[in-house]
Amino acid sequence: MMGYKYTIMRDPIPSHAKMVFKGKIFEVWQWEQKMFDGSIMIFERLRRPNTVQSVATVGDKILLQTQQQPDKMEPFPSLPGGRCDSFDEDPLEAAKRELLEETGYVSDDWTLWKEQNPVGKIQWTIYTFIARNCRKQQEPQLDAGEKITTHLIDFEEFLMLSEHPYFYEKELAVSLFRARFSQKERKKLKNLIFGK
Amino acid sequence: MMGYKYTIMRDPIPSHAKMVFKGKIFEVWQWEQKMFDGSIMIFERLRRPNTVQSVATVGDKILLQTQQQPDKMEPFPSLPGGRCDSFDEDPLEAAKRELLEETGYVSDDWTLWKEQNPVGKIQWTIYTFIARNCRKQQEPQLDAGEKITTHLIDFEEFLMLSEHPYFYEKELAVSLFRARFSQKERKKLKNLIFGK
Repeated sequence: MMGYKYTIMRDPIPSHAKMVFKGKIFEVWQWEQKMFDGSIMIFERLRRPNTVQSVATVGDKILLQTQQQPDKMEPFPSLPGGRCDSFDEDPLEAAKRELLEETGYVSDDWTLWKEQNPVGKIQWTIYTFIARNCRKQQEPQLDAGEKITTHLIDFEEFLMLSEHPYFYEKELAVSLFRARFSQKERKKLKNLIFGK
Repeated sequence: MMGYKYTIMRDPIPSHAKMVFKGKIFEVWQWEQKMFDGSIMIFERLRRPNTVQSVATVGDKILLQTQQQPDKMEPFPSLPGGRCDSFDEDPLEAAKRELLEETGYVSDDWTLWKEQNPVGKIQWTIYTFIARNCRKQQEPQLDAGEKITTHLIDFEEFLMLSEHPYFYEKELAVSLFRARFSQKERKKLKNLIFGK
């Protein structure tokens, strides 16, 4: 299952850029950019560890979390996932680790569904995996910054996440919308998620 | 037309946070965050100037741009818009300024359509306005970092932007999808954009 060829990086930081600040999560990089008229400006872009999330199935259900964070007011629905431990961690390994820690589930049937770069000015990819036929291996191991409850929803409920105001995955929402409004796309997505 | 009450700020930087770095665009802020178990961690969030974009109509058409940036490979479709000049600039003023600079058009009929906070860890709002019945006032005044051509598309072409791989406004894409698949939503959006 290793060795995915990850492909998309919308706007990589140029190789001659310099890191001007390293924070807890974000790095700030700058470089001299030649403009269309030949003049030079300082351009800036950020780098942060990539993040992963999984559409994890148990039978004909999907694992959905309701999550609260220490500095956020409102609980929000999310898929199991989190940050890669480093800039080098393999996204699939991170997805397996986060699924196990947050839900206690494991899967032997993983597929990469989406790679998105949500913000042009940040070198940051969100990897969305599908983890089929999950089975429970242990109790969740939440850290001090997590308050997460996991529940099982069916495919139709999953599609309706596209209507939830606090479901922040807008690119995913587009895919869910597509499936809601086209029988063909709905069938395709269902087959992809549950395997066929 | 002034004095919109802008409402949404998903995760504002807490008032006791300190700015630890100020870059060209991004500021990095940190604070001590109490976790659910009472322990303390350094949390980090960014701030950047808000951005604006406009769905600008001319007769029964919509102004769409094809844009190239000095550090990006591929031209991409976008709505007229850009960054607020400061953290205090009124988004509507910024939208008027950017529309005039990038397209040469002005409007007397502005409506706020959307306020989005696309990234949880960045204090940053994208304001989407509708600018109806635009008329050309001058030639575009592009700066050295812009290569923009403007063209007019009809409502159906506008909806199909939701299929374009380089149309980066995913929340907007969700609205376009909704309108493509429901006659009622299509009519509602058309009335909103063109005025009725």
